[in-house]
Amino acid sequence: MIWYQRMKNKNYLKHIKLPEDLKKLKISQLKPLAEEIRKLLLTSVSVTGGHLSSNLGAVELTIALHYVFNSPKDKIVWDVGHQSYVHKILTGRAKSFCTLRKSGGLSGFTRPSESVHDAVVSGHSSTSVSSALGIACARDLRGENFDVVAVIGDGSLTGGLAYEGLNNAASATSRLIVVLNDNEMSISKNVGALSTHLAVLRSNPSYLNVKKEVKKVLDRSQIGRMFARTIGKAKTNLKYLVMPNVFFEEMGFTYVGAVDGHNITELVNALKTCRQFEGPVLLHVKTQKGKGYEKAEKSPEYFHGVERFDLETGEPLYEKGKSFTSVFGETIVSLAEKNDKIVAVTAAMTSGTGLSKFSQKFPDRFFDVGIAEAHAVTFCAGLATQGLKPVFAVYSTFLQRAYDQIIHDVCIANLPVVFAIDRAGIVGADGETHQGVFDLSFLSHIPNMTVFAPKNAAEMRVAFNTAFLMDSPVAVRYPRGCAIDEEYTCDMTEPEIFSDGERIAVVTVGEMFYPALEACEQLNAEGIFPALINVRQVFPISEKLLKILEKFDLIFTVENNTCDGGFGQKLNCAIS
Amino acid sequence: MIWYQRMKNKNYLKHIKLPEDLKKLKISQLKPLAEEIRKLLLTSVSVTGGHLSSNLGAVELTIALHYVFNSPKDKIVWDVGHQSYVHKILTGRAKSFCTLRKSGGLSGFTRPSESVHDAVVSGHSSTSVSSALGIACARDLRGENFDVVAVIGDGSLTGGLAYEGLNNAASATSRLIVVLNDNEMSISKNVGALSTHLAVLRSNPSYLNVKKEVKKVLDRSQIGRMFARTIGKAKTNLKYLVMPNVFFEEMGFTYVGAVDGHNITELVNALKTCRQFEGPVLLHVKTQKGKGYEKAEKSPEYFHGVERFDLETGEPLYEKGKSFTSVFGETIVSLAEKNDKIVAVTAAMTSGTGLSKFSQKFPDRFFDVGIAEAHAVTFCAGLATQGLKPVFAVYSTFLQRAYDQIIHDVCIANLPVVFAIDRAGIVGADGETHQGVFDLSFLSHIPNMTVFAPKNAAEMRVAFNTAFLMDSPVAVRYPRGCAIDEEYTCDMTEPEIFSDGERIAVVTVGEMFYPALEACEQLNAEGIFPALINVRQVFPISEKLLKILEKFDLIFTVENNTCDGGFGQKLNCAIS
Repeated sequence: MIWYQRMKNKNYLKHIKLPEDLKKLKISQLKPLAEEIRKLLLTSVSVTGGHLSSNLGAVELTIALHYVFNSPKDKIVWDVGHQSYVHKILTGRAKSFCTLRKSGGLSGFTRPSESVHDAVVSGHSSTSVSSALGIACARDLRGENFDVVAVIGDGSLTGGLAYEGLNNAASATSRLIVVLNDNEMSISKNVGALSTHLAVLRSNPSYLNVKKEVKKVLDRSQIGRMFARTIGKAKTNLKYLVMPNVFFEEMGFTYVGAVDGHNITELVNALKTCRQFEGPVLLHVKTQKGKGYEKAEKSPEYFHGVERFDLETGEPLYEKGKSFTSVFGETIVSLAEKNDKIVAVTAAMTSGTGLSKFSQKFPDRFFDVGIAEAHAVTFCAGLATQGLKPVFAVYSTFLQRAYDQIIHDVCIANLPVVFAIDRAGIVGADGETHQGVFDLSFLSHIPNMTVFAPKNAAEMRVAFNTAFLMDSPVAVRYPRGCAIDEEYTCDMTEPEIFSDGERIAVVTVGEMFYPALEACEQLNAEGIFPALINVRQVFPISEKLLKILEKFDLIFTVENNTCDGGFGQKLNCAIS
Repeated sequence: MIWYQRMKNKNYLKHIKLPEDLKKLKISQLKPLAEEIRKLLLTSVSVTGGHLSSNLGAVELTIALHYVFNSPKDKIVWDVGHQSYVHKILTGRAKSFCTLRKSGGLSGFTRPSESVHDAVVSGHSSTSVSSALGIACARDLRGENFDVVAVIGDGSLTGGLAYEGLNNAASATSRLIVVLNDNEMSISKNVGALSTHLAVLRSNPSYLNVKKEVKKVLDRSQIGRMFARTIGKAKTNLKYLVMPNVFFEEMGFTYVGAVDGHNITELVNALKTCRQFEGPVLLHVKTQKGKGYEKAEKSPEYFHGVERFDLETGEPLYEKGKSFTSVFGETIVSLAEKNDKIVAVTAAMTSGTGLSKFSQKFPDRFFDVGIAEAHAVTFCAGLATQGLKPVFAVYSTFLQRAYDQIIHDVCIANLPVVFAIDRAGIVGADGETHQGVFDLSFLSHIPNMTVFAPKNAAEMRVAFNTAFLMDSPVAVRYPRGCAIDEEYTCDMTEPEIFSDGERIAVVTVGEMFYPALEACEQLNAEGIFPALINVRQVFPISEKLLKILEKFDLIFTVENNTCDGGFGQKLNCAIS
């Protein structure tokens, strides 16, 4: 007897060092393994924090993928990558899983530098089909033979990049498997209904005969033949008789599904079926976010990305001050009460950007456009042409996706769109793909754009109030984390001289004022008294600021952004 | 009798100052008007240059739109805008049409600042649905009542932004008409066939009865009833029996079409039908690019965007030197002959980026991904992970659309993708939406990116040769227009000291070397002898360059890019 036959229940995981170990298990042993992995996810993520719901939902799917495919020879490309925890656990990283999202520990996303099993860098949504297609085309060109699987959620599918990838995949005709991990969000009114009914047929290796069978039935009667003729004119149209979910078939994909994403046997069979096709295949898998943890099943959005929490109660284990995000949420509601032209737009992040209250209070004036930042910006431009005052609330790193739309649709036309840029600057545990360190660089060279950086709650309120009074594009950028809750008013277009000095000036952007203040106090103790200036309006750099700075010999700038193209460089150039 | 009744054939146009004048014509008079407009397009564009094929194809469609809708109350949003010439002619700009694309003249795209009939700024592709949806949502919120029409080509529909817009339009349920101007390019294998057969039914106001009729027929036989039951489970599925082009219906649109885009009566009826629907409607119009000018019908791509040409022969009326584009085309073929890892990617601009020869010579190694720049970049990243050496050839202004993908998919992973950035710098007649003046700014702050700017053909060859030898992302940026055809070799990573000097240095980027050389020669005549340095590698700024510049008191930089975030600012910061 070998180890995996002797093993008691709930003791499989420690023997799985690599995916090949997984393949030694019988299919019946995969279910207890799934439970074991779920337990690890819960006990570990409740301590480290991380993406919980999506990983609980992808346990069986990930096991099935590694049971059927041979990573790293076969490439599994995880869209966004926040659902790759089980993949990490099965590919030699179970032991280090407790280091997740810690400095020097495992990334919360996939990283080729971390493991050969991570095919690409992930972090942003909707990239997987494009990446996987690139890998598949390269394979074909080099005459190699392996499988390429993109795993994409239905949410990610609302991103235009995913569509561009699907569209291209069909014409490229490379062998490619796209697994649609469909967890509750409806991607199309017609997903479901008849397609569920047909799922068993379609995921069974013999389902290809179905079309022939239908044709036979049709041929038996006159009216049937008539329909077969009419509809069969375009040969492919016969499929509409048996398959209402034609969206993907229209895109050129063979559609398989929908299968129960928590039934490993069904998943394994379906994946084996998918391997047999020549061109692009889409496997539709239905999963439940948060599966196996009742609290996450009930509040999948809350447990999507969590900090440390108590497993029993589900309550967070940390004291949370008032965040910049929540100050934005309150401010926008209070401004919208007074100004009915204010409307708010989010790209699938209502709660993450603080818009929940706004969405409840002003449902008609609230637009969730899906994971579609580029569209969100152009849509805002359209709203603004009609005299409305749209605010697009978005994380800094995701606004990168709408760089061209900011230039082309908003700023060339000089339209009054407000950008509420959350998570600007270093964001910590989410890692390199999520840092908001480029926004000052990419906004600073766009004509007509004004950028405010409030240092605390008081300035947040003024910044948005001012932004909506302006008749041109305005960005307000603020960091993740707590906002010092002061109450005063000010002019955000004017720099604040917090303390004056002689030779040396320290000029700060936004919340960096506070660490700079601390540094200044230390310097004061050493007899050095630099001026401390909070810039408030970052771009364009004001004449007033330049005038204030004229008398100083030495100017330090403190900003939460990459140096290249940021405020410091711009100020340097403006002065010289 | 009033003027339009008295008019002889081919004399309508001069009476049409505004769209309301058009409405005074009988529908039978619109056809000769179309011919008259075509003549104006040909005689004028052959002199001014501009987008010819798409406008010749949109003559009847534009007339029908302005015949049915009431601009500027109703909003017509032209995607890209290069097909808006007829719209300009019908909205008070016929007389100034000869100033098209000239300084101070009409823009080649739509500009709200030019006319109230231009609803949005256009120039880049795939934005129209998003803009139009914004306008429609604003209208509903403000309780106003007008029609919003987006006119989009099938090419533009390959862009992810268009899909994001369509996807959102369906859920927004605002009244919105999208006119799909389908000119030859196949957007889906299933467009055509049965849909053509059904076009008349669908574009007729009574077509809504068709579904009922089909149901009646089905009910007459047993097998029919069986099918009606099976397929009718999901109520909407019945439509698949009569309408195979379900792509748009899946997206939530009511589909009308396809209608003949050169039959004004059919178009007018179809547009009137579209007005009657409550939610989003898609009208599928089939047009022929270049319609009415034989040479353009035969070579629609050549006549897509043209310089001055001879109407009789179709030949260009200007002497064309060897362009940077064609040097790229030759170089890439010659490098690919020696290195079979080189593959080339374009976003629907094979000929515009100089890749025609490559595509013919290496069809397996050539990928046209559609108007999908974001996908192109992520696709290249996928190719590069497998050891290939992809080059993405793209115009500077369109690369703005892939800013995030350059960061997220290429540069974080440090993958060897080569960007061939054509039309960098000022591009002239195409106007503000097409200037390539931001690429140095948005590339300079991205980690791992190297940027070369060759000054002539010789340096182009070396730049690409070097780029493919590097194991990290490299951009080569070059302008529209002629490349001086020299033959020499050099090191692109080292600055060229063309002439040394004392106090003053002039540092140039790319082709700006030549005007700077001229300026230096004039200074020489006045007894001033500045050093002239061609930087070659723009970013990262090399230590060598900084060392060379140490001895100078005064440094001038000359670059074809916006000052903000460009080479000059970066050099300034690096020095100070």
